[in-house]
Amino acid sequence: MAAGRFVEVYLDLLSQPCRAVHILLDRTGIPQRVRSVALRKGEHRSPEFTELNPLQKVPVMVDNGFVLTESDAILKYLATKYNIPEHWYPRQPERRARVDEYTAWHHSNTRPHAATVFILEVLVPAQTGSQVDEGRLTRALSQLDGTLDNLESMFLRRQPFLCGDDITVADLLAICELMQPVGGGRDVLQQRPQLQRWRSRVQAAVGDSFDRAHAVLYGVRDRRKAKL
Amino acid sequence: MAAGRFVEVYLDLLSQPCRAVHILLDRTGIPQRVRSVALRKGEHRSPEFTELNPLQKVPVMVDNGFVLTESDAILKYLATKYNIPEHWYPRQPERRARVDEYTAWHHSNTRPHAATVFILEVLVPAQTGSQVDEGRLTRALSQLDGTLDNLESMFLRRQPFLCGDDITVADLLAICELMQPVGGGRDVLQQRPQLQRWRSRVQAAVGDSFDRAHAVLYGVRDRRKAKL
Repeated sequence: MAAGRFVEVYLDLLSQPCRAVHILLDRTGIPQRVRSVALRKGEHRSPEFTELNPLQKVPVMVDNGFVLTESDAILKYLATKYNIPEHWYPRQPERRARVDEYTAWHHSNTRPHAATVFILEVLVPAQTGSQVDEGRLTRALSQLDGTLDNLESMFLRRQPFLCGDDITVADLLAICELMQPVGGGRDVLQQRPQLQRWRSRVQAAVGDSFDRAHAVLYGVRDRRKAKL
Repeated sequence: MAAGRFVEVYLDLLSQPCRAVHILLDRTGIPQRVRSVALRKGEHRSPEFTELNPLQKVPVMVDNGFVLTESDAILKYLATKYNIPEHWYPRQPERRARVDEYTAWHHSNTRPHAATVFILEVLVPAQTGSQVDEGRLTRALSQLDGTLDNLESMFLRRQPFLCGDDITVADLLAICELMQPVGGGRDVLQQRPQLQRWRSRVQAAVGDSFDRAHAVLYGVRDRRKAKL
């Protein structure tokens, strides 16, 4: 299938890691077909999708028959395999190691801590009809605060992007997690001018791809606001 | 410092990710100096170590002035920068993506689930003098069981190692986590012949480096046994 070849990705844009993949594809213009997998409708548990990914998680990428899961791996594979600007995932070993260092850290810090805030404020109340558990939310916000401190003092200490002077896949993974609480009307960067400037730089670097990936999340925020 | 150049690594061999780094260095013979950082003595909070890694975590690698944290990133950097057998971190994009896929998954699954068992059975009782919290331990073991199921049915489904026909850095990260509960006298692979065969293959592939990295953990197990 050399002619008309494209990368197929299975995404739900309410999922943070799916948005990171969407932004990279959209911004770099890698030929793509986006297949929607609506988690809220349980489409990730369908027999067809389970055949593709037995772990029943999005995103999934299929490139010429090669099936790959995990956004982190998908982003690095796309940057390696396709002819996109090298800054996304630098080849020079030290610069590449900085991206691998952040992404390894990300999975145990930025990802769980930002996601928990959204889960407690939006998902659990929507699914159970119960009030927000304020005690658990306070603890989650405090853990997220520690992560935001580390993003500022460690990764953004002396540079405009998380891994150096230019945007990399690490910035995409991070910003998509930190945007997630916006779905519940919360901007976790509100008191964080240093991180706000970083967010603006990421938005400027990816242009309209940012809002296209986040439109569904903005919709969640706006519908909640209309209900209040 | 071209002559006599070596990689410096700051490790505590009771830390699972440190053992993975130790095994790779030891097995491949990359010129190295191991600096011990005893977590139980709080040496990771010393001013000198904090200068090196403000997050106060091991392992840390210093290669010709380049300071890198996160075992995942260190292993991939070493495999890229040094002339070691390519199977550790294949260059072919699809094979490399399989390693990145496992390692991304690892951080949210194998690592927290196996570590929690050790923390509940060994660390918390040693630090507080309290009994093991059996309710929490049962839940942790159940979560670990789910991860072991996935290791068998997803990653080892059709191949002898986690990412293909030969050992990679992914197998090192995984085995070092799954060995950790041995410190409390628990072999989490006891009822898992498929994973036991994989462990034997990993041990055969790294030879004596396996036991050299695990000697401190075996010591913890043996001292606990002697006390009973």
